[in-house]
Amino acid sequence: MDGLKHAVSSIEEKSDRTQPQAGWFGMDGIAEERMEKTMKTRITEMLGIEYPIIQGGMAWVAEHNLAAAVSAAGGLGLIGGANAPGEVVRDEIRKARALTDRPIGVNVMLLSPHAEDVAKVVVEEGIKVVTTGAGNPEKYMEMWKNAGIRVIPVVASVALARRMEKYGADAVVAEGTESGGHIGEETTMTLVPQVVDAVSIPVIAAGGIGDGRGIAAAFMLGAEAVQMGTRFVVAKESIVHENYKQRIIKAKDIDSVVTGRSHGHPVRGLRNQMTREYTKLEQEGKSFEELEYLTLGALRKAVQEGDVMNGTVMAGQIAGLISKEQTCKEMIGEMMEQAKKLLNRE
Amino acid sequence: MDGLKHAVSSIEEKSDRTQPQAGWFGMDGIAEERMEKTMKTRITEMLGIEYPIIQGGMAWVAEHNLAAAVSAAGGLGLIGGANAPGEVVRDEIRKARALTDRPIGVNVMLLSPHAEDVAKVVVEEGIKVVTTGAGNPEKYMEMWKNAGIRVIPVVASVALARRMEKYGADAVVAEGTESGGHIGEETTMTLVPQVVDAVSIPVIAAGGIGDGRGIAAAFMLGAEAVQMGTRFVVAKESIVHENYKQRIIKAKDIDSVVTGRSHGHPVRGLRNQMTREYTKLEQEGKSFEELEYLTLGALRKAVQEGDVMNGTVMAGQIAGLISKEQTCKEMIGEMMEQAKKLLNRE
Repeated sequence: MDGLKHAVSSIEEKSDRTQPQAGWFGMDGIAEERMEKTMKTRITEMLGIEYPIIQGGMAWVAEHNLAAAVSAAGGLGLIGGANAPGEVVRDEIRKARALTDRPIGVNVMLLSPHAEDVAKVVVEEGIKVVTTGAGNPEKYMEMWKNAGIRVIPVVASVALARRMEKYGADAVVAEGTESGGHIGEETTMTLVPQVVDAVSIPVIAAGGIGDGRGIAAAFMLGAEAVQMGTRFVVAKESIVHENYKQRIIKAKDIDSVVTGRSHGHPVRGLRNQMTREYTKLEQEGKSFEELEYLTLGALRKAVQEGDVMNGTVMAGQIAGLISKEQTCKEMIGEMMEQAKKLLNRE
Repeated sequence: MDGLKHAVSSIEEKSDRTQPQAGWFGMDGIAEERMEKTMKTRITEMLGIEYPIIQGGMAWVAEHNLAAAVSAAGGLGLIGGANAPGEVVRDEIRKARALTDRPIGVNVMLLSPHAEDVAKVVVEEGIKVVTTGAGNPEKYMEMWKNAGIRVIPVVASVALARRMEKYGADAVVAEGTESGGHIGEETTMTLVPQVVDAVSIPVIAAGGIGDGRGIAAAFMLGAEAVQMGTRFVVAKESIVHENYKQRIIKAKDIDSVVTGRSHGHPVRGLRNQMTREYTKLEQEGKSFEELEYLTLGALRKAVQEGDVMNGTVMAGQIAGLISKEQTCKEMIGEMMEQAKKLLNRE
């Protein structure tokens, strides 16, 4: 298994900084050998999923239809809590469960005014996997752990990954700056191996992964699963407005842009009238507060109304690689086939 | 061979945008099969090198000692032309040749006031591989081609890669934003597969590659070699000041910063007094010209005098992964072993 190989080689190579890896706790030699030849990892085992593919918990996009479709196809679908009230999230969970009996996860956005409610709802609804973004999940950790929930924070740095492991996280998503939406500064290529070296829990790679090549590359870097957002936005089951999907499908490699960097709130989306205006005002030195009116409701406007000129079309740099609408089953099947071929696995 | 697999799968997957791949021109089935099981690629064949590792042509850093050491170890060492006069570059080439009889390349910085002289010197000195940065090598292409030189431009976008192929480039270096020094915006993870899909010539991945995991990941993305800068800066044979090397060795994942982005001249280096001052003035809206005095001679100051507080410590995000000084031979040996293990190749 790569994770193990990496653990060993990273100890050899970085003995001055790297703590010894715990390795495959609780697994015997046979389990390890099976993993070495297949795409099974600690993450697929832990989450009870067939393929090491998790769908990102994107605000407005990650609702029950998409999450259920990804889970039904053998990945892990997530309901994106975003700023939604607890009852809305509860409703989404139930609707997803009406569509599939496979596991469904929830992304809890910790800065949401409803974070506390949502944190309770996932327990009440018997959710078994929670990813967290935008903050520190420490205050919910005990409640979630007692409920048997696997907690997987999204991190953009080694220090945060280490802290999350210390707080009891079961895994981390190491997310590169090429991702869509709110981002950090490290790229997937540099962040993933550094996080893998720093923690013993499994690492899920996110950012810039759009096909089987990206999955295979992430595995080489030591990841045990991937999280993908942009590609699933254009899934047939995705309720995102057709204009939004077409904007991603037609995007070129250089079509994304980061706004808000100077305010410390970088967000990646596809270039349009809104981002041009934002960038202009940002360069003129306008404050974050002065610019907030521009983005208020702008994601919803793009996702639901299809206003891709004045709305926020969040998407990652990998949009340039994405060329067609498919069902989640087709996407996952195609990507897994490509990844297995490249990795010589079954 | 992955390149071929990728070519096939990319045609299946992106038939609406991808031109058919030319594939392994001039190679028979046996050569292809050998490549599939080893680390030999079109790049190692084309350049006559043992390992698919190229050392970046870094200004002030890529001089004859480093280039010769990388080439002697089986990679391809480059002399960085930077802004140096033709005769200085000639001298460096000759000194490198006194140290090794393996191939040596030259990076020609096309914006240099001496670019034309350097372009002639490489022909006169019988150099067989030229990489180019910061501009369009078209005007030298005929002269270089007639001299049997392989021309490999560094590109940061799909459109530029396509244009370079049209002008007759033999390969391209697709360089991600995680690189040190002057950078583009696309990350290695997203840029490499998109460039691979767009051109038929081989692609070399650069940016964020610091060990065998990075090499293996780059191969999964379709690259046929890697170019590495930051790791070679700390090589024992590198003449870079010890302070500079130690700054890289001690760097954490988040220690690099990009200056000059608002002026359209983004440069990545390690955070210090100079970058803090630059960033502050940049945010105050100072022009590129007003800020130039800060960076004038700043790279030389760091590389040669070891002033890592007020000088420019160019380095990539992967600095955080780099933990020790080694000879180029040790580095290449260690990385190749790790990459081969991960890729199940010999």
